[in-house]
Amino acid sequence: MSDQRTELEKLGEFGLIEHLTKDFVNQNPSTSCGIGDDAAVISISDEDAKLISTDMLIEGVHFNLMYMPLKHLGYKAVAVNVSDICAMNGTAEQITVSIAVSNRFPVEALEELYDGIRTACSIYNVDLIGGDTTSSLSGLSISITVIGSAKKKDIAYRSGAKENDLLVATGDLGAAYMGLQILEREKVVYNANPEIQPDLDGHDYIIERQLKPEARHDIILFLKELGIKPTSMIDISDGLASEIMHICKSSKVGCHVYDEKIPIDAKTSMTAIEFNLDPSTCALNGGEDYELLFTVPQSDFEKVKGNPHMSIIGHMTNEADGIYFIDKSGSSLELQAQGWSHLND
Amino acid sequence: MSDQRTELEKLGEFGLIEHLTKDFVNQNPSTSCGIGDDAAVISISDEDAKLISTDMLIEGVHFNLMYMPLKHLGYKAVAVNVSDICAMNGTAEQITVSIAVSNRFPVEALEELYDGIRTACSIYNVDLIGGDTTSSLSGLSISITVIGSAKKKDIAYRSGAKENDLLVATGDLGAAYMGLQILEREKVVYNANPEIQPDLDGHDYIIERQLKPEARHDIILFLKELGIKPTSMIDISDGLASEIMHICKSSKVGCHVYDEKIPIDAKTSMTAIEFNLDPSTCALNGGEDYELLFTVPQSDFEKVKGNPHMSIIGHMTNEADGIYFIDKSGSSLELQAQGWSHLND
Repeated sequence: MSDQRTELEKLGEFGLIEHLTKDFVNQNPSTSCGIGDDAAVISISDEDAKLISTDMLIEGVHFNLMYMPLKHLGYKAVAVNVSDICAMNGTAEQITVSIAVSNRFPVEALEELYDGIRTACSIYNVDLIGGDTTSSLSGLSISITVIGSAKKKDIAYRSGAKENDLLVATGDLGAAYMGLQILEREKVVYNANPEIQPDLDGHDYIIERQLKPEARHDIILFLKELGIKPTSMIDISDGLASEIMHICKSSKVGCHVYDEKIPIDAKTSMTAIEFNLDPSTCALNGGEDYELLFTVPQSDFEKVKGNPHMSIIGHMTNEADGIYFIDKSGSSLELQAQGWSHLND
Repeated sequence: MSDQRTELEKLGEFGLIEHLTKDFVNQNPSTSCGIGDDAAVISISDEDAKLISTDMLIEGVHFNLMYMPLKHLGYKAVAVNVSDICAMNGTAEQITVSIAVSNRFPVEALEELYDGIRTACSIYNVDLIGGDTTSSLSGLSISITVIGSAKKKDIAYRSGAKENDLLVATGDLGAAYMGLQILEREKVVYNANPEIQPDLDGHDYIIERQLKPEARHDIILFLKELGIKPTSMIDISDGLASEIMHICKSSKVGCHVYDEKIPIDAKTSMTAIEFNLDPSTCALNGGEDYELLFTVPQSDFEKVKGNPHMSIIGHMTNEADGIYFIDKSGSSLELQAQGWSHLND
């Protein structure tokens, strides 16, 4: 090893992956898409492909067991992986689950975790086909790999958005982030005085969005029913702004996204205001919503319009035009992705 | 959670996996073999299948960076996963690599790790298709998932061994364990006095077996050339005794394994004796050799006999006869699997 020392923070998560993997060359003809999308694509026949994605969750970085029940954690770990397969317009079918645990955890704790995993497997129709169970020196780590299926012609990559395409978000955004703020606030209160009961009243929706997010496989079914093949798609795990920038970068397009069009639930807005936060900023940079963000040709406008699960929030422009957020006063602001960068936390 | 607290050690690694996954039911027709073999099997057509396996390596549990160079660690992490695909008589094609690192590691350290991963990918003809990079509160964790291919008719499960089949081990056994003993001894010496240079002279072979094991994909090619389809197969990761017991349990057979037939390199034996250890015990319980253990019908005797990479070490018997180790004096001892149990460490 050379004597040089470059801190990990300097590159950020995406920069680091790009840096470490830049010299890898694919050698197998079955590898049709590697690093750089929500899932990798492995060709298995002229028409069909398998989709593979993997996620690692680390205690103290991605979750806090003080307010995250193990059952919810197991459920969420599966859901966020299934979400990556949805983001390719595919169907998740199998998962492997590896866990590393310290002896602080009894068997009963892992039973709770696997109870959540099993519930999610049942709801998303996914089979647990393997894994690894090992000890750790401290804390709990979970690594899940999901395997999905798709017709090759149906796969939606990040790279397919075209100028003038409509930008569509599903569900509502920012709720998971505000749920986290409530949980963090009550943690501080509890730590100061364990006698005080946590005040979560009226925050059920946003807390559930944080603790028990759902993968939008229902949207994949709606899209098929509506006859829509998105030109590009990604799941919203790191915040809307970051995901828009991923699509724009991969597709070599620009974007106009409209503040007033961003779907935000009233409970999210109210909580944001209570915390002196701008609701749109929470939606743009909050993350963990696991909604889908996709683009469709303008000719699909009629199919998307009025669908209660989908909001048209902008349109794609020429790459040279840049990526702009148009606020409620009509002012354009160049979009900055802040998102979650776990390596910067 | 109930108030009961059962310690993880009570169940052991294999018992724990079995306990946690017993209530899972497979729902997808493509899932043709789930938990319980070296890799899961996903059907992709009438003739073809994908094989999936995953492994998690935790600093301080599976590796010690004091004597494990990061480049070797990267190489080994890939090799042990490829070994699981070999154990199914398949060919590894893709891997995903997730890592969690603390900020103790600079970018340069991860470059070394990925250098080793890239070398292994190149040697085993495997493509890196995805992964996750995240921070950890302490230490380094690596989680790899490997995807392989096989013709369904070629897949060797643990469960296919028949009474009277020959039991065959590849390469030589116990070397990786003795390499670890040397490295641990020199670590103790170094910790006591950092001025003393480690004395690794003459131990290159066994140290390399510990630090840079190879997956025996060459054996898979030999088997094809020789026209041999093993009736059962497993890779020797936890020690010969443990693997024999896995095959016997899955195949519902007994076994006679002969001490004098177990392939042990002279350097392994000499080092074992230096450490006052019985070389056969090291081969039986040492682990991390990543050789293959398989069974073939007696009719394949001529094909296997005299092959320098393969040793016939015993034969399978009726389940009711039990699993016996026949020592050099001809005495029978019932085999006990000690193996590695990281959860018991």
